[in-house]
Amino acid sequence: MRVIKLTISYDGTDFCGWQAQAEGRTVQTTLETAWQNITGEFIRFTASGRTDAGVHALGQVVSARTCSSFPLARLPLALNANLPADVRVLQAEDAPKDFCAILSARGKTYRYLIQDRPAHNVFWRRYAWHQPKQLDRISMQAAANLLIGEHDFQAFQGSGSPRKTTVRHVRRLTVDDHATELAPLLRIEIEANGFLYNMVRNIVGTLVEVGKGRAAPDWVGDVLRSCDRTQAGPTAPPQGLALVHVEYPKCGDTS
Amino acid sequence: MRVIKLTISYDGTDFCGWQAQAEGRTVQTTLETAWQNITGEFIRFTASGRTDAGVHALGQVVSARTCSSFPLARLPLALNANLPADVRVLQAEDAPKDFCAILSARGKTYRYLIQDRPAHNVFWRRYAWHQPKQLDRISMQAAANLLIGEHDFQAFQGSGSPRKTTVRHVRRLTVDDHATELAPLLRIEIEANGFLYNMVRNIVGTLVEVGKGRAAPDWVGDVLRSCDRTQAGPTAPPQGLALVHVEYPKCGDTS
Repeated sequence: MRVIKLTISYDGTDFCGWQAQAEGRTVQTTLETAWQNITGEFIRFTASGRTDAGVHALGQVVSARTCSSFPLARLPLALNANLPADVRVLQAEDAPKDFCAILSARGKTYRYLIQDRPAHNVFWRRYAWHQPKQLDRISMQAAANLLIGEHDFQAFQGSGSPRKTTVRHVRRLTVDDHATELAPLLRIEIEANGFLYNMVRNIVGTLVEVGKGRAAPDWVGDVLRSCDRTQAGPTAPPQGLALVHVEYPKCGDTS
Repeated sequence: MRVIKLTISYDGTDFCGWQAQAEGRTVQTTLETAWQNITGEFIRFTASGRTDAGVHALGQVVSARTCSSFPLARLPLALNANLPADVRVLQAEDAPKDFCAILSARGKTYRYLIQDRPAHNVFWRRYAWHQPKQLDRISMQAAANLLIGEHDFQAFQGSGSPRKTTVRHVRRLTVDDHATELAPLLRIEIEANGFLYNMVRNIVGTLVEVGKGRAAPDWVGDVLRSCDRTQAGPTAPPQGLALVHVEYPKCGDTS
């Protein structure tokens, strides 16, 4: 028995999210089918987090126990040959016996992109939220600063997936310009030891209220302290969100 | 009667090209429908060039004669509200009475993107050609240099759309690295006074043969002189190609 750790990337647009479900195309089922095609073995992959429908991944990490002795070096090429073009395996590693993509994770980084100008750029429409008016980055960063640190993020937790504790440690939360060749974008990056359901999209929706001038930065502090979801802004749509990176303890990476 | 000049951008992936046809979704029909929705008037738009199915545009220029007095400043917003998300109007201008997007054009710039590494990046799969092995940029640029200048490009003309003369003036043809956040790409840019049918994709397919090491740069000069399409490389697929810019005489731009 070995434990396989894969780093994968996907365009979430045409997926009903990571998690296998009765109907609809999911990343989990797609990956498991590709694995079965090359090894003949059905195994269940666990992801570091279950991305929702429409959410992308630049560096999602998944793991599974396997009895297959398929050579590690050939795994990415073999899996990619059996995967549709919107999912790619970037890296395959042998992991320690106790490694689990979700339980071993020490932190994650998400990114949210916004196109804030009148006409959206057609090439970013699947990967960024369109806001017709320019958002005030300075106010948004001032508001974001109030969320950095260890807090109870209950006010930013989506319904339907409660956790034991709603306390999380946001290590970094930045709002800046992201220059791309095709369009200037607004980029929000957030790194934390863990995330509640829809936490990033609820934070982004709340920061955008500030960016629009509908609320002052201090209001975001009030929302946080209220621990009341109804006080926060709307949930930002999925297409702007991407899971960028998952952090594991050094010893769990390769040894 | 006025002549309207629009600069538009589109993601060609889900279009059967620019030109209206009996079946299939085209950019021309999509734009004409949007125009009819806001003005009630059916007019025919002429594009600077008819992009093929799957080919993109960053800055396509189209023109039409109209009797509508719809205010110029409100045109982009009004048209965009009636267009699907994969076409955007970037700019609207009043043009001189004798302006025609195709006949007045003095030159065009196209860009072709290639991902040349084992696993393609999922976010570029709709906008770049995937080549699993790295291409030799130095050889490709040496070959490209042989095509710069005024030549008979008959060897690079696709069948089915003959022109009066196959002589064109290639002013610039560059092969370089195009660093993007998500993936390093190879970029080929070509500027000419005009293009034959499939000329860019045939040039790219031929340069890639050189980049793969299947032929020496000098071979491209032989192909050019042969004036024989069967001597050139294969036609590169459409998704890597984008019309970047169309050049018009200064006086025809706004006066």
